[in-house]
Amino acid sequence: MRLVCLLSTLAKSLAPPKTLLRRRRLSSATALSMAASEESLRLALSEKQAAVDTQAEAVRALKARPGAAKAEIDAAVESLKALKVDAGAAARRLQAAVSSSGDGGSREAFRQAVVNTLERRLFYIPSFKIYRGVAGLYDYGPPGCAVKSNVLAFWRQHFVLEENMLEVDCPCVTPEVVLKASGHVEKFTDLMVKDEKTGTCYRADHLLKDYCKEKLEKDLTLSAEKAAELKHVLAMLDDLSAEELGAKLKEYGITAPDTKNPLSDPYPFNLMFQTSIGPSGLSPGYMRPETAQGIFVNFKDLYYYNGNKLPFAAAQIGQAFRNEISPRQGLLRVREFTLAEIEHFVDPEDKSHPKFVDVANLEFLMFPRKEQMAGESAKPMILGEAVSKGIVNNETLGYFIGRVYLFLTRLGIDKERLRFRQHLPNEMAHYAADCWDAEIECSYGWIECVGIADRSAYDLRAHSEKSGVALVAHEKFSEPREVEKLVIVPSKKELGLAFKGNQKMVVEALEAMSEKEALEMKASLESKGEVELTVCTLGKDVVITKKMVSISIEKKKEHQRVFTPSVVEPSFGIGRIIYCLFEHSFYTRPSKSEDEQLNVFRFPPLVAPIKCTVFPLIKSQKFDDAAKIIAKSLTTAGISHIIDITGTSIGKRYARTDEIGVPFAITVDATDSVTIRERDSKEQIRVGINEVASVVKEVTDGQSTWADIMWRYPAHSAIQTNE
Amino acid sequence: MRLVCLLSTLAKSLAPPKTLLRRRRLSSATALSMAASEESLRLALSEKQAAVDTQAEAVRALKARPGAAKAEIDAAVESLKALKVDAGAAARRLQAAVSSSGDGGSREAFRQAVVNTLERRLFYIPSFKIYRGVAGLYDYGPPGCAVKSNVLAFWRQHFVLEENMLEVDCPCVTPEVVLKASGHVEKFTDLMVKDEKTGTCYRADHLLKDYCKEKLEKDLTLSAEKAAELKHVLAMLDDLSAEELGAKLKEYGITAPDTKNPLSDPYPFNLMFQTSIGPSGLSPGYMRPETAQGIFVNFKDLYYYNGNKLPFAAAQIGQAFRNEISPRQGLLRVREFTLAEIEHFVDPEDKSHPKFVDVANLEFLMFPRKEQMAGESAKPMILGEAVSKGIVNNETLGYFIGRVYLFLTRLGIDKERLRFRQHLPNEMAHYAADCWDAEIECSYGWIECVGIADRSAYDLRAHSEKSGVALVAHEKFSEPREVEKLVIVPSKKELGLAFKGNQKMVVEALEAMSEKEALEMKASLESKGEVELTVCTLGKDVVITKKMVSISIEKKKEHQRVFTPSVVEPSFGIGRIIYCLFEHSFYTRPSKSEDEQLNVFRFPPLVAPIKCTVFPLIKSQKFDDAAKIIAKSLTTAGISHIIDITGTSIGKRYARTDEIGVPFAITVDATDSVTIRERDSKEQIRVGINEVASVVKEVTDGQSTWADIMWRYPAHSAIQTNE
Repeated sequence: MRLVCLLSTLAKSLAPPKTLLRRRRLSSATALSMAASEESLRLALSEKQAAVDTQAEAVRALKARPGAAKAEIDAAVESLKALKVDAGAAARRLQAAVSSSGDGGSREAFRQAVVNTLERRLFYIPSFKIYRGVAGLYDYGPPGCAVKSNVLAFWRQHFVLEENMLEVDCPCVTPEVVLKASGHVEKFTDLMVKDEKTGTCYRADHLLKDYCKEKLEKDLTLSAEKAAELKHVLAMLDDLSAEELGAKLKEYGITAPDTKNPLSDPYPFNLMFQTSIGPSGLSPGYMRPETAQGIFVNFKDLYYYNGNKLPFAAAQIGQAFRNEISPRQGLLRVREFTLAEIEHFVDPEDKSHPKFVDVANLEFLMFPRKEQMAGESAKPMILGEAVSKGIVNNETLGYFIGRVYLFLTRLGIDKERLRFRQHLPNEMAHYAADCWDAEIECSYGWIECVGIADRSAYDLRAHSEKSGVALVAHEKFSEPREVEKLVIVPSKKELGLAFKGNQKMVVEALEAMSEKEALEMKASLESKGEVELTVCTLGKDVVITKKMVSISIEKKKEHQRVFTPSVVEPSFGIGRIIYCLFEHSFYTRPSKSEDEQLNVFRFPPLVAPIKCTVFPLIKSQKFDDAAKIIAKSLTTAGISHIIDITGTSIGKRYARTDEIGVPFAITVDATDSVTIRERDSKEQIRVGINEVASVVKEVTDGQSTWADIMWRYPAHSAIQTNE
Repeated sequence: MRLVCLLSTLAKSLAPPKTLLRRRRLSSATALSMAASEESLRLALSEKQAAVDTQAEAVRALKARPGAAKAEIDAAVESLKALKVDAGAAARRLQAAVSSSGDGGSREAFRQAVVNTLERRLFYIPSFKIYRGVAGLYDYGPPGCAVKSNVLAFWRQHFVLEENMLEVDCPCVTPEVVLKASGHVEKFTDLMVKDEKTGTCYRADHLLKDYCKEKLEKDLTLSAEKAAELKHVLAMLDDLSAEELGAKLKEYGITAPDTKNPLSDPYPFNLMFQTSIGPSGLSPGYMRPETAQGIFVNFKDLYYYNGNKLPFAAAQIGQAFRNEISPRQGLLRVREFTLAEIEHFVDPEDKSHPKFVDVANLEFLMFPRKEQMAGESAKPMILGEAVSKGIVNNETLGYFIGRVYLFLTRLGIDKERLRFRQHLPNEMAHYAADCWDAEIECSYGWIECVGIADRSAYDLRAHSEKSGVALVAHEKFSEPREVEKLVIVPSKKELGLAFKGNQKMVVEALEAMSEKEALEMKASLESKGEVELTVCTLGKDVVITKKMVSISIEKKKEHQRVFTPSVVEPSFGIGRIIYCLFEHSFYTRPSKSEDEQLNVFRFPPLVAPIKCTVFPLIKSQKFDDAAKIIAKSLTTAGISHIIDITGTSIGKRYARTDEIGVPFAITVDATDSVTIRERDSKEQIRVGINEVASVVKEVTDGQSTWADIMWRYPAHSAIQTNE
């Protein structure tokens, strides 16, 4: 399956087999932009290597020739050396080109620094660590949990409250029928192979991918043809059937990585955690793989709640579960995660959005289909233009793209490392009108963190069919409208005479005709008097004459239009967003004495796990008392904080809180006024003890910036602190 | 199992079998206070019935006697009639006494009114309704979800932020080993019976309970002895073993309720949803039945995070799962629910709490052990006195009881219908120091909504043992302390001579002696020179002489004390609290025309799903524009609101929002100023359009009361509204 399957759009896009292509397209887009240079480098290397071989042969021949002049031999050896240097340089250039964009090492090192800090400061913890953990399950420790809770609170504010969405909260335990309707029971699978001796399970595509990448990166003797083949396999990875994948594994002689044992043939493994509801063992259930289905099955009630009016949006935050075969990539691919999903229901005939003007002027990196296919890269576009030019399918989809951009950047995601990538036609489900992913660049590459899809009427129709409950909307006409309706009236008498016992099947076949078929029959009957009709239930064609059926177009008055709404679905992988935020917020700076690097998370106050710390400068009863008074006023103002009364130096205490991203530190160095220090600039101001809570509140609530505050209060020189 | 098993204390208290008694004790306490009157009523009824029978016999005899005077017969019949009236009255009195405290009917009607409103207004929805739902699973619809989110936000503010707790967020999917350590795999069961023909499952205790209650309530001819027996069975219900329960079902001839088929013998059914982690099928896992275990397994990291200092508290909000055999009681017993749990780790030798003074003066209903055993009822007590008198075991436990009281009453729980009930000695686990439940009275009776337990060191020890990781705290002494240590030194030479090949077992037995045993041996050896020692591994007693072992008390210096912390655990069933809050907040009042009853939820602004509504008085562009300006300022102020621009009368629009508990309504009847109406008093004030958002914020944030606001702004007479 795809790298990017955390999000629900994906789960659902699985339904039609042709939509399993996301990972492939992403690879090919990248491949296209790199292929040219890499191929010429491979060619250059093999030419240089050939020149080395030829010259080496010449040197050998020269040395073997009796009476060859030493000067001549020396010159030939010098020339060979020069050619070897050349070939070495060509090999290094190729190596650099093939090892993931050249900076793989520094990316790894950066990631390791972030992850070390995150784990050491308990942003997250491998779950059940004392029992040696479970792959793909993580706990958020105190600062991580606070960040998550802040991100979700802001999500509620930014989407649910701002847009008056209807938030719901449905259970994780889901009966099978719901996930049969959605297609998950049948299609939500990855292909798996087993070590035939030990039974260890692997994802089949992972093994093939690892093989191809390793070959391409490490085997510089690879011919250009072989390299192209392996790249093609990588690009096709998600398109391969179980049989094709199995054949490739065999062809390349791929065995179990740990034991080198032979592997089983690939077979599908359903990624849902299965369970049983109730005591009988007869009601299979699953832990939901996404939250969206809970909204779809409630459409009827929610539509009623909204006064039977469209458009409206419902939203849900909750846990989702995927029993990954072999989780990798830390917090990015996990077995349980928090999703925040919006289903915005809209009339398919009117996808305009009244608030689109509010986001139309935003400009950010977009990566439309066309640019991907041409091997170009993402480019800044103005959202309003993308919609008016038809690059983004409609205003409602565009509105949510804009709102997602604002959401992510306000959290602290770097604008330069955020792009909206459009799905290629064959990445999308056949029913989808348009899909865009918010991708964030981190040390693992560009990661899909939010999917924004116009899924048309697919989900509501699927549940309508399975449940037999109409999930539709009504548009009441202000006055009745005249519409043309096709009317097919079979003549039972004539049909009875002609077909006897088969009459019923013929009647049904006539009534089941589409408008197009019926109109064609009408034309044929009028011109030829008779026509053949295939009756599937009889397994044969019968001849229908003019007398047997009357087909007409009649005018009728309708008082309302009944239709299945379209749904635009922004779906947020909260854990992925948070992980990328961690990477984008992390930096190091030297300590004052420059003997060590200090870690800092530059979280905006909105997401910082703790908004401020209170440090008595030295151990003293009166400073401790003042610190307690300040703490109390901070609590009253609803500002999370910690007091650190350890005797450690102020510099060390600052470093400790910078490392968990606390934006402000209050140092109690007097009993009437104190200093407030900002984390990133390290600037300090002096504020009266009674004002300090309100000042911190002002700047953490976003009513003022630190610059505003700096302007109003005297700066404090930090001579006595040892930063 | 107990009526009240939603909360985690219970799950854990299952470990020792003797603690399955909560429901029983609760029943017996209630039974004690009612038994006397009911028994006398039964006696009275059977006496009156006997008198009726005697008189009827006399009438029959009189009528049969030839020549009996008509007057005499008439008088006897009259007398019989009078006796029958008497007996009828006695039967009614008994009926009233036995049918749940006499007001069962009105309780039912009240509940129905609340539930109808809740379901109609989508506070909650049976999950997967279009597929005919799943018992015990509910969705929160928009207003319910908003209430829940407000309750959780306040919980975070009141507990996590106010107490600087370490919040964590662990997965629901839990590997088996963790729940084996906690005892859930072995003991978290209910006894189940199956219909032998259809396979339908029932909770065995439910069937027995229903039988006994039905008999007691409906069968007025029951003898006092039989009634006492059935009551005894009800009281013992949770104490019965599978065999005893099975025997009772057989004795009473209880069959499957739906089919009257015979039932299987009772057998234990584990209430955890089971699943499998990873693709191999070899790693069983469960959906967690409580959130607490996630905290216990992280103790070591959290203790380190807290600077290796005690006390500290960790907290977690999350989903928990229980696969109930047959869920009843709507939102009170569900298969998936939100728990909010706190584990406060404390030195077992010092359970004082520095902030206890803040709650010591609170006075509320407490129901200590003594009053329950004496058949008395709950009584108001001052918390500080309850602790100082030793009724509540320690200050930390007392502190949390006080904080829970404040939390619940600030949400809007009625003080008069909230009590803290202490567990009876045999309700508690053997390791627990003291437990109190916050019980809230609703139409289902007194419902446990929060459990507050001092669980001593049980949980940390269990995980320490199972994982082999020490979960302990250290108290560093400021200077080393001299302690006395028992030293047992077996003489291997002497023991080897005496026991040859068995020497090793004897040495181990000597070293394994407790302090008490060793000191007794030392005394015996000194007085008698030899002593018998049972060596289990040899299966016999051996004679130990003075030469074979040296036992002494030596003085050693210790630099720190190493101990397993005690844990005080407040555990909140969020769904139960919310349901009780719904009932306590609901009332009806007549419409202005008095032709119908209007429903109101008197939620405080803190929990109200929407804080205010905006109504243009009449359809008009300028009023609509003004409403939009107000809506924008409310959004900026972070106040949830809805605009209702339907042409309906203002009175109807008020009624509609009163019914979902919106505390304030802004009516736009001019473009410069508007009215604000308070839900319960229906009072209105007039406020300038630019001020309205800040006024609403002030009163919804709790900075001002409505009375304060009324004082500052002119009252508005509501003549034009048709309330």
